[in-house]
Amino acid sequence: MTTKKMHAIDALHEAQKLAFSPLFFQAVLTIRNLGILDYIFDKDGQATIEDIVRDLGLSDYGVRLLVEAAESAGALSVNEAGLLEVTKTGFFILKDRMTQVNFNFVQDVCYEGARVLEDCVKNGKPEGLKVFGNWPTVYEGLSQLPDRVKKSWFEFDHFYSDNAFPSALKIVFDPKPAYIFDIGGNTGKWSMLCCEYDPDVRVKILDLPGQLAVSRENARQRNLLERIDFHQINLLDTSQKVPQGADVIWMSQFLDCFAVEEIVAILKNVCQAANQNTRIYILEPFFDNQKYAAAKHSLIGTSLYFTTIANGNSKMYSVEVMKNLVSQAGLVVSQEYPLLDGSYHTLLECRKT
Amino acid sequence: MTTKKMHAIDALHEAQKLAFSPLFFQAVLTIRNLGILDYIFDKDGQATIEDIVRDLGLSDYGVRLLVEAAESAGALSVNEAGLLEVTKTGFFILKDRMTQVNFNFVQDVCYEGARVLEDCVKNGKPEGLKVFGNWPTVYEGLSQLPDRVKKSWFEFDHFYSDNAFPSALKIVFDPKPAYIFDIGGNTGKWSMLCCEYDPDVRVKILDLPGQLAVSRENARQRNLLERIDFHQINLLDTSQKVPQGADVIWMSQFLDCFAVEEIVAILKNVCQAANQNTRIYILEPFFDNQKYAAAKHSLIGTSLYFTTIANGNSKMYSVEVMKNLVSQAGLVVSQEYPLLDGSYHTLLECRKT
Repeated sequence: MTTKKMHAIDALHEAQKLAFSPLFFQAVLTIRNLGILDYIFDKDGQATIEDIVRDLGLSDYGVRLLVEAAESAGALSVNEAGLLEVTKTGFFILKDRMTQVNFNFVQDVCYEGARVLEDCVKNGKPEGLKVFGNWPTVYEGLSQLPDRVKKSWFEFDHFYSDNAFPSALKIVFDPKPAYIFDIGGNTGKWSMLCCEYDPDVRVKILDLPGQLAVSRENARQRNLLERIDFHQINLLDTSQKVPQGADVIWMSQFLDCFAVEEIVAILKNVCQAANQNTRIYILEPFFDNQKYAAAKHSLIGTSLYFTTIANGNSKMYSVEVMKNLVSQAGLVVSQEYPLLDGSYHTLLECRKT
Repeated sequence: MTTKKMHAIDALHEAQKLAFSPLFFQAVLTIRNLGILDYIFDKDGQATIEDIVRDLGLSDYGVRLLVEAAESAGALSVNEAGLLEVTKTGFFILKDRMTQVNFNFVQDVCYEGARVLEDCVKNGKPEGLKVFGNWPTVYEGLSQLPDRVKKSWFEFDHFYSDNAFPSALKIVFDPKPAYIFDIGGNTGKWSMLCCEYDPDVRVKILDLPGQLAVSRENARQRNLLERIDFHQINLLDTSQKVPQGADVIWMSQFLDCFAVEEIVAILKNVCQAANQNTRIYILEPFFDNQKYAAAKHSLIGTSLYFTTIANGNSKMYSVEVMKNLVSQAGLVVSQEYPLLDGSYHTLLECRKT
């Protein structure tokens, strides 16, 4: 329903849905976590509140509360005989991996800290991160987060980064590069995939010391230390230059961790390291070229995580904004590969102008 | 859109809206609190992000983030020229008193504590209340809550209780009662209205000592001490009996503060105090006979507040459940007055069987 055509009474309903949404979020999460949604799904339209109370050992009060809330949130339906059924929305909440990952990430990583979003916007700092510790950004604190928070963080991070890689490999290796620089290579996942994909390629991972330690250990376990180099660099320090010599410079879900001015500085740094033949790749989930509204909404929600928890100054970008930053850095987009493999990611191939 | 007819892709979107809803709640609240929504409304379709940054002195990053989030939440629309407009939903968020009251109540009173809803359901206790203090229920702690929390609590409480009273007075005073018992009379608002409505009526407020102190002071200021009696009672202690002698026994938004077993005990206590001519009134916003989906949703959201913050065992009830409790207590509903004055409240008139 477009907003122009929306009746006032429906808009009032939408406004109340927003106003009470944190409470319904908790209700839906709880009815999932307590196994109630699963129970109703298994009973295939035959479950009653009394069944749940008896079989799951929960209070009548609690089950009734959660069923009423989940029905109002659209995750359950209750027919006139009091029989419960999981709706399509409820099915995704119960069974869809992306939805599970998103719920856990929002509850464990974002919920508490997001309360101070207003302060984050005013101060340009991730004030919500203080619920976990006193680090300038989440990246410094990642290894010290409570286990459950860390688990939800990594599951979210990995879920969104991996599925574009198979198609991206084909593009990057046609024509074959001899030397790839993986900027912000993190755990080394992409670099190791490159080594597996092409037995001749060499890779250099450029990252902060903590990340390099992790990727070096991962490379060691896969016997790839002879083919992967490790280059310590802090790209927020513009005096530290990206070295020359790459055929391909690769940045996957890296630039969204920075503010626009920082992105321009990083891309300028990349530009000085490139020559006319260097292919520079930016892999990002841009929110404005998604096929589904669900994906766009999730990406914009992820921006709010960056503001409140991650670093206070980065976000998910639109492809138009990113192209503008590319051009400010003296680069030009030579090719655009949208939504690789049905993933959320677009690959931009850039060249030095 | 009914869930049966919903396309899977729309259901996936709904599921992601739920998953990220606490973040979008914060974004919408922040864009309201920082005056951005108001600014866009005043500019009547002509505001740009650049205007807001300049005129409100906020960062380009912060404004862009909030505008993208508010658009995705349905509170704003952005046209192809980058001009911003407040949607109908956004209009209610900005201007509608109920929506304002609900947002403030959820943020200030409920948000932080609601995070532990799962524990509340398991333990039957308002575990979320611990973010404010170690009281068994919110009622003991009300006077000690931080000012902003207290303000949001009372604004919410008053907003929903007052608008049904004018119609209710006409019903209760036809025929004229000589003596009204106001059970759970709280600040004495209803009792004082009765005294103003009919110069002959006497009222007895029955409540806990703290509430009686407040209502006595209010009655004193209005010179009503000669017409209002004060009777200290804890209705959770079944040995404390409601006295006899009332023509009308009145309970307004009182029973929703108790669990079903407690409600039956209270109604039995009322029953023993009544004779065949005593009219017993229950005024409640029942969630299942609301005219608008917005109201039903808000009431069910309010149940989640009772679970996490108020007392851990009460909720908003359906009229069917309440009638069943009335009957268990030996009473019968003799009249039902739904949605008084276009309010959310239904008045049940009960008699001893």
